[in-house]
Amino acid sequence: ICKPAEMEKLMENDVFMAFSTYAAIVILKMMLMAPMTAYYRLTRGAFANDEDVSRKPAEERKKLLRAHPDVERVRRCHQNDLENIIPFVVIGLLYALSGPELSTALLHFRLFTGSRIFHTIAYVGALPQPSRGLSWMLGMLVTFSMAYRVCMYMYL
Amino acid sequence: ICKPAEMEKLMENDVFMAFSTYAAIVILKMMLMAPMTAYYRLTRGAFANDEDVSRKPAEERKKLLRAHPDVERVRRCHQNDLENIIPFVVIGLLYALSGPELSTALLHFRLFTGSRIFHTIAYVGALPQPSRGLSWMLGMLVTFSMAYRVCMYMYL
Amino acid sequence: ICKPAEMEKLMENDVFMAFSTYAAIVILKMMLMAPMTAYYRLTRGAFANDEDVSRKPAEERKKLLRAHPDVERVRRCHQNDLENIIPFVVIGLLYALSGPELSTALLHFRLFTGSRIFHTIAYVGALPQPSRGLSWMLGMLVTFSMAYRVCMYMYL
Repeated sequence: ICKPAEMEKLMENDVFMAFSTYAAIVILKMMLMAPMTAYYRLTRGAFANDEDVSRKPAEERKKLLRAHPDVERVRRCHQNDLENIIPFVVIGLLYALSGPELSTALLHFRLFTGSRIFHTIAYVGALPQPSRGLSWMLGMLVTFSMAYRVCMYMYL
Repeated sequence: ICKPAEMEKLMENDVFMAFSTYAAIVILKMMLMAPMTAYYRLTRGAFANDEDVSRKPAEERKKLLRAHPDVERVRRCHQNDLENIIPFVVIGLLYALSGPELSTALLHFRLFTGSRIFHTIAYVGALPQPSRGLSWMLGMLVTFSMAYRVCMYMYL
Repeated sequence: ICKPAEMEKLMENDVFMAFSTYAAIVILKMMLMAPMTAYYRLTRGAFANDEDVSRKPAEERKKLLRAHPDVERVRRCHQNDLENIIPFVVIGLLYALSGPELSTALLHFRLFTGSRIFHTIAYVGALPQPSRGLSWMLGMLVTFSMAYRVCMYMYL
């Protein structure tokens, strides 16, 4: 956005830099759920497509096309990331452009990032509730708090 | 983007402000599907994880780990939001940056937002078809219309 | 972003223009999975909601509310797009704003777009592995490569 000279100014904007950093961290964390799903599919022997088991002995194939609780758990965690991290990135971008205080913005970004990392640990590790529920709720509240500021600039 | 002084100019750009407003509304609408899912899980007694039912009497637990049609309906609605609202936000951002007329842009943003709110009512309320189908199609057409303008600036 | 005069400068920034182009292409490709799902639902007779089959003869309705392997395959492909294309758009936007060389940026964007188009062909066409696996991995590697550059500008 803006031409190269102006883009360097963007990279001098601390709030936007902080947003970029934490957005990249949570998106990368979300992307790691895919290799984790692959790992569980391989170790648990639970696949979704015929072509994924075509090299296995014919008598094993049918058994390998199944859902395994560990795989489904990681997939639910991945889905929960999609449902929460993407709204954070969109609302967070608009929030960063609305010119908040750097310290307030950092508090939002760090709380969200921490809550989602803990949420993944609680989900994949099946920690007792309400650990997962509370970390999910903290992430939601941080996003709503940023949305509240964005809504002060409403143009309907 | 751009440094603080320039960011205030962003907030003086009507098309971008309008985009921010409607993007925030549809993203918040999408986020509300999560508490709605939680509400249906609790009232219908249909959970997905062992640790979510660990405080229930042992003989009830197994029965509560099930799929319930009302929960699955809300989840399908949430998934449809992910599949439609996120493309709107991405294409809409590029569209807003391409400098359209304010009135044309507002028409696009309002039609999309209205169509998705109605879509949720039609889906969760199980209204007779083609109400849900038409509202889904309207949202798709609005996004394609914005994409058409974005594609006029193609750099392949 | 920035006011109209400055937005035209954005449209003169080649890297951002290239990002817009390829982001629009992969998002539109992802959106096409929805009509494809609808097509398979109609031709295979496999629906998810009561109201979608309410005009069919009463004795057929129950049979039509089912999962069909071809529909599920397209839906898994759509889900894989959500899990990979959205991270590309977010990381790609931050990458484009970090001022990379145009030729390097184009290489990233084109490789990703090509890998995802091939991934869809491999998935929907059930091509023998590892065609789908390799195209998925190429897309992931391109996104990680862009994220690596974004992370050089970290502000924690």
